[in-house]
Amino acid sequence: MKLRLGMIGGGQGAFIGAVHRIAARIDDQYELVCGAFSSDPAKAKASGIALGLNEDRIYGSYKELIEKEKQLPEDERVQVISIVTPNHVHFEPAKLALENGFNVVLDKPMTFSLAEAKELKKVVESGGKQFCLTHTYTGYPMVKEAKQLVKSGKLGKIRKVYVEYPQGWLSTFLEGEDNKQASWRTDPGKSGIAGAMGDIGTHAFNLAEYVSGLSVTQLCADINIVVEGRKLDDDGAVLLKFDNGASGVLMATQIAAGEENNVKVRVYGEKGGLEWQQVDANSLVVKWSDKPAEIWRTGGGYTSSFAQHNTRTPSGHPEGYLEAFANLYRNFALTVKAGLEGKQPEPEWLDFPGVEEGVRGMAFTENVIASGKSDQKWTPFTI
Amino acid sequence: MKLRLGMIGGGQGAFIGAVHRIAARIDDQYELVCGAFSSDPAKAKASGIALGLNEDRIYGSYKELIEKEKQLPEDERVQVISIVTPNHVHFEPAKLALENGFNVVLDKPMTFSLAEAKELKKVVESGGKQFCLTHTYTGYPMVKEAKQLVKSGKLGKIRKVYVEYPQGWLSTFLEGEDNKQASWRTDPGKSGIAGAMGDIGTHAFNLAEYVSGLSVTQLCADINIVVEGRKLDDDGAVLLKFDNGASGVLMATQIAAGEENNVKVRVYGEKGGLEWQQVDANSLVVKWSDKPAEIWRTGGGYTSSFAQHNTRTPSGHPEGYLEAFANLYRNFALTVKAGLEGKQPEPEWLDFPGVEEGVRGMAFTENVIASGKSDQKWTPFTI
Amino acid sequence: MKLRLGMIGGGQGAFIGAVHRIAARIDDQYELVCGAFSSDPAKAKASGIALGLNEDRIYGSYKELIEKEKQLPEDERVQVISIVTPNHVHFEPAKLALENGFNVVLDKPMTFSLAEAKELKKVVESGGKQFCLTHTYTGYPMVKEAKQLVKSGKLGKIRKVYVEYPQGWLSTFLEGEDNKQASWRTDPGKSGIAGAMGDIGTHAFNLAEYVSGLSVTQLCADINIVVEGRKLDDDGAVLLKFDNGASGVLMATQIAAGEENNVKVRVYGEKGGLEWQQVDANSLVVKWSDKPAEIWRTGGGYTSSFAQHNTRTPSGHPEGYLEAFANLYRNFALTVKAGLEGKQPEPEWLDFPGVEEGVRGMAFTENVIASGKSDQKWTPFTI
Amino acid sequence: MKLRLGMIGGGQGAFIGAVHRIAARIDDQYELVCGAFSSDPAKAKASGIALGLNEDRIYGSYKELIEKEKQLPEDERVQVISIVTPNHVHFEPAKLALENGFNVVLDKPMTFSLAEAKELKKVVESGGKQFCLTHTYTGYPMVKEAKQLVKSGKLGKIRKVYVEYPQGWLSTFLEGEDNKQASWRTDPGKSGIAGAMGDIGTHAFNLAEYVSGLSVTQLCADINIVVEGRKLDDDGAVLLKFDNGASGVLMATQIAAGEENNVKVRVYGEKGGLEWQQVDANSLVVKWSDKPAEIWRTGGGYTSSFAQHNTRTPSGHPEGYLEAFANLYRNFALTVKAGLEGKQPEPEWLDFPGVEEGVRGMAFTENVIASGKSDQKWTPFTI
Repeated sequence: MKLRLGMIGGGQGAFIGAVHRIAARIDDQYELVCGAFSSDPAKAKASGIALGLNEDRIYGSYKELIEKEKQLPEDERVQVISIVTPNHVHFEPAKLALENGFNVVLDKPMTFSLAEAKELKKVVESGGKQFCLTHTYTGYPMVKEAKQLVKSGKLGKIRKVYVEYPQGWLSTFLEGEDNKQASWRTDPGKSGIAGAMGDIGTHAFNLAEYVSGLSVTQLCADINIVVEGRKLDDDGAVLLKFDNGASGVLMATQIAAGEENNVKVRVYGEKGGLEWQQVDANSLVVKWSDKPAEIWRTGGGYTSSFAQHNTRTPSGHPEGYLEAFANLYRNFALTVKAGLEGKQPEPEWLDFPGVEEGVRGMAFTENVIASGKSDQKWTPFTI
Repeated sequence: MKLRLGMIGGGQGAFIGAVHRIAARIDDQYELVCGAFSSDPAKAKASGIALGLNEDRIYGSYKELIEKEKQLPEDERVQVISIVTPNHVHFEPAKLALENGFNVVLDKPMTFSLAEAKELKKVVESGGKQFCLTHTYTGYPMVKEAKQLVKSGKLGKIRKVYVEYPQGWLSTFLEGEDNKQASWRTDPGKSGIAGAMGDIGTHAFNLAEYVSGLSVTQLCADINIVVEGRKLDDDGAVLLKFDNGASGVLMATQIAAGEENNVKVRVYGEKGGLEWQQVDANSLVVKWSDKPAEIWRTGGGYTSSFAQHNTRTPSGHPEGYLEAFANLYRNFALTVKAGLEGKQPEPEWLDFPGVEEGVRGMAFTENVIASGKSDQKWTPFTI
Repeated sequence: MKLRLGMIGGGQGAFIGAVHRIAARIDDQYELVCGAFSSDPAKAKASGIALGLNEDRIYGSYKELIEKEKQLPEDERVQVISIVTPNHVHFEPAKLALENGFNVVLDKPMTFSLAEAKELKKVVESGGKQFCLTHTYTGYPMVKEAKQLVKSGKLGKIRKVYVEYPQGWLSTFLEGEDNKQASWRTDPGKSGIAGAMGDIGTHAFNLAEYVSGLSVTQLCADINIVVEGRKLDDDGAVLLKFDNGASGVLMATQIAAGEENNVKVRVYGEKGGLEWQQVDANSLVVKWSDKPAEIWRTGGGYTSSFAQHNTRTPSGHPEGYLEAFANLYRNFALTVKAGLEGKQPEPEWLDFPGVEEGVRGMAFTENVIASGKSDQKWTPFTI
Repeated sequence: MKLRLGMIGGGQGAFIGAVHRIAARIDDQYELVCGAFSSDPAKAKASGIALGLNEDRIYGSYKELIEKEKQLPEDERVQVISIVTPNHVHFEPAKLALENGFNVVLDKPMTFSLAEAKELKKVVESGGKQFCLTHTYTGYPMVKEAKQLVKSGKLGKIRKVYVEYPQGWLSTFLEGEDNKQASWRTDPGKSGIAGAMGDIGTHAFNLAEYVSGLSVTQLCADINIVVEGRKLDDDGAVLLKFDNGASGVLMATQIAAGEENNVKVRVYGEKGGLEWQQVDANSLVVKWSDKPAEIWRTGGGYTSSFAQHNTRTPSGHPEGYLEAFANLYRNFALTVKAGLEGKQPEPEWLDFPGVEEGVRGMAFTENVIASGKSDQKWTPFTI
């Protein structure tokens, strides 16, 4: 049984919408049935037709989509709605979809502001619908393995976390050159109060908390606008304190010229440490105080059920970003279906980011920007 | 417009069939409409139902599939048939499908014997249908880039080719332990005259010829059965001579304990060399005599149209094995559709392995096994 | 002509003393003629004898060494004195040696306190003798290449600097286990006010300033004692501001369990970035916004005179830590000899760390510890 | 106590002579006392003076050196003679030195021909003097660790050996450009019957036998002269059979444009494999069938006494080619001294290549060249 999928945003030319669709297709758990792909009606229609949708289910707005789909018979009606619009159009459609009984997949960061995030959390918790926030990197098998390894206690109590997300694509004033991606991401009206911190800092933050199993309690940020004329931060570094007393560093930048997207996390406990980076996504390097470092690999027979459940091919055949993304979609589908069938989802299925991660991500954004402006060293992590 | 896809083989529990289906789904160019998934009718049916097919298009045999589909109206009838059976069931269904007007995607090696391969080549060339042989590794963007770099002449005349495919999974007598994959791959009745050489040696051979643009003219092989009781070769190394005078080495083994599937190719010309390996699939290392080595990356703005056409995500977000496989499927679809629309396919679309590569692959298998048994050093590469 | 070398500290069982002696031997520019190897007379004597010294030039104290050597004829007298004692015995012997007309090589950090460092600077500047502070990592050919690349302007204006020095060896309370290295390095009476920050933080700081050509103007530090019972910091992370407006992060820790000594620096300018790490010391990775990353290698014909001058073997034969150390010694010798011969030293010879770096290193230590205790975010870098 | 060292060859401008001298200096076990550095008297003298020798111990020929030194009092006379001349001047001076009671260090390959090698072996075995052949790569701590790991049986019975030595420096006709190194190495009158096979093939061969603990019994070679006008082979690949039934491949080339000197060996047993390469000389990658791969590191507390004995610096501070070379010199010195003192040398000291390795190396050269010319597949490895 495939879940009926609808999409808000992601029309022709969009990057992340196409990624969501591939992710949804890979494991054949969804069938795209409807969409409101653009606020431009002609583009919305053309996008839907190109995707093979029936014209009567190509909508001109997310409101129309939700309203009309709701009127369809239950066995025809969309079941999961993916929202892939810029940040300022996250909250309203997500809220409306959830309130009207649809499960929602939402691109990160969850909302435009923390206030919205907290409200959306209430909506999710008070409704009975499932919600997934696409922090892609937690979908990688070896990131899941890293989390399980920390959780197992084998590294001992965690003491130090380093996480970094270096990009170079905004090294120049790209938003002045009619670049769609650059334009909205550097526009406070569309992105919110943060640029790099919201776009990639939240990914790094989520990855650090996900793998370490810890929660940030204080932070101290150096937030910069490096490229002249830019309106939002394009660079930052943050000192972190965690709830178990560990400390950490988060680095996220979009002006590291020559860098691609090599997000990387390192976590050290009393007995050993681990290291994962996207450029070598199928390896988890585990280091020990007293024995040789180990390279744990996607598909290895020794990996946990969490890694294995999220692996498709034999060891050595690399799985990448789209498969990580697909893992979010697949686990979300398995969870939604379990609900429909009145079954208990497996722990491995439930391992996708949700509204809690979304609220913490927005809190990170607001706290980090506040800290950046403060003369005080430590800013408490408040929600 | 999606192409209507059928599948022969690939029932529940099969590995490569599932890979083909994911590959076909990723770019949304196909819709699976029918299948003959197993010679076991119950399994065939269960497999088809699990894939969401209508029961009347789940067939009990490939013959039935071809016969019945042929009778369907042209706009409903399957257009592309994927054949993912063990090697001894490649030739007959492929021939029948082609002769009945269907386009064919066939898993490698092309056939059970060179004689079959040559006959299938005639069938393909005399019909008007398209044919794709899934030598996956040529679908990687950086493998395509490697080929284009050689072709550009920047490395100078090619002098040396090293290619290797080390695996360790057959280090023990796995076929004695009820392992489906091991059983048929080590069974002369299903695999043909070669084990490792046919299974992965042909991949290495194809990769070497694809990237270098050269053709092997002579070879000298050391072919071994290392694990006691095994019936087919599980290890081999081959000295190569190419048509431009270059020499090379091919190593393929299934008993390199601890190795995954790190197929790797290195090509050296007068001025520089290149190196690609699956474990770091999105990098192409280019080495020069007189300047620093370079790391060309999937998604790099400086890559050729062949690489860019086969890339989905921004640089730094790894694409993997399934995406490489999907590139074959997508390029095949674009080519088939161009034919349907009476258009000329782009050179980038036509860059998928076909019947010529299939014949050469089978010739490699037969020549390499013959050489392995010969006391003479060089065996001419005969077809 | 070899320079006559004496050593203070570095008796049997010492680590860094032996390293200094190897470094001095590699290029045959020195002959060890005398030493005051230990405050324990028996050990001092045994050490000297084991090193093949004449007994009359094995001294019981650094004061005796300086006094007695001064009385020897000029063509017999020691010319260069290496001081390899713990930090609290740096200033006095260095000052005395310089004031008595000897050239000095001093292990880092320069002194026990900033005040001492500033005084020593005066001594150096007012005397006519040469002084080298052994910040080893600046001796690596590819670190020198990195500096030259930045200096060339090819990366554009520098915007971001990341430097890190992760160690794991102090993950446990090693100073409680009769470990000589751990004991003095964690003892405030011997190390000074800082542990990790003084021991390896100063190396990272020096490397960042050396490669970037920039000077830190402000810093914000998170300084931790992680291991219970320890008296000095064993972990820290520091946000940095540089004099050209660039920002940076410095991470130094001794509790990253499983880490060896992989000091690493990354510098990004407007057009590209570079990355060097000790684990792959003979490679300098240079990344560009618009073309493939490059791997510059020790011994490459395309490297600068600064790299080539500090390279001994053909490309591909790795040079390591001892060779980097030896480069300091060799350049110091060439400079001292030039002085003796009344010649102008080459710029490549003068490229070794000296008193200025020493003062800045001690200022780093004091400022970083002060910042660690402060509630204020930014601490100005004061000397 | 330092051993008194003399040198034959290695005058100004020579590469390997300087390397030998650094290697001898690093561990302070030798004092250079005499030399016959060149057949050109002026150059010989200038070289000796530059090295600080007394003029009366700078000799005009190796014969003079041996004759004159022999007449010196025993406690003044040279004890170890290093011979670093081109291949055609190996046998005579080595034989003469040994026959006159001197210990000998000889650069590889041992001699100009196998016949000479066998004769030299007799000389060594009938005299009481020590002999070391500088197959540098066996001096690396992690190569020693690899040998010990194989020997421990943990990998199971060895089945496959891959060894390669790719260089690119002879990609052009360098010997036509007044390049000293290229000239003698490509000159049959100085190098012998082999070029690449003698120069680097023997290194690869030695490394394969050393690490695997096996002996080659048959080989099948493809030997090429790639660059037009060259007189000796500059490229080759060899299929190998070992005495325990294992097979292997050896690749050595000097025309792999862009390659430095990344000699690499891989050995696979029934349960796992290992991989070492010079570019990452301080890591030994150990792969297992059923658990994560491990990275064993120079200086790791878990390494064998053979690795630890040959390590100078703490883990993470790379040791390189010169240190590997120095390990040969140091172990040789410890062995010679043990002899002088009537003590039994430790097994770790005796682990340096000698006359047996030299004979096998020359046999490899002659057999491989013979095989290259033969139409027969397998050539028995005859001595």
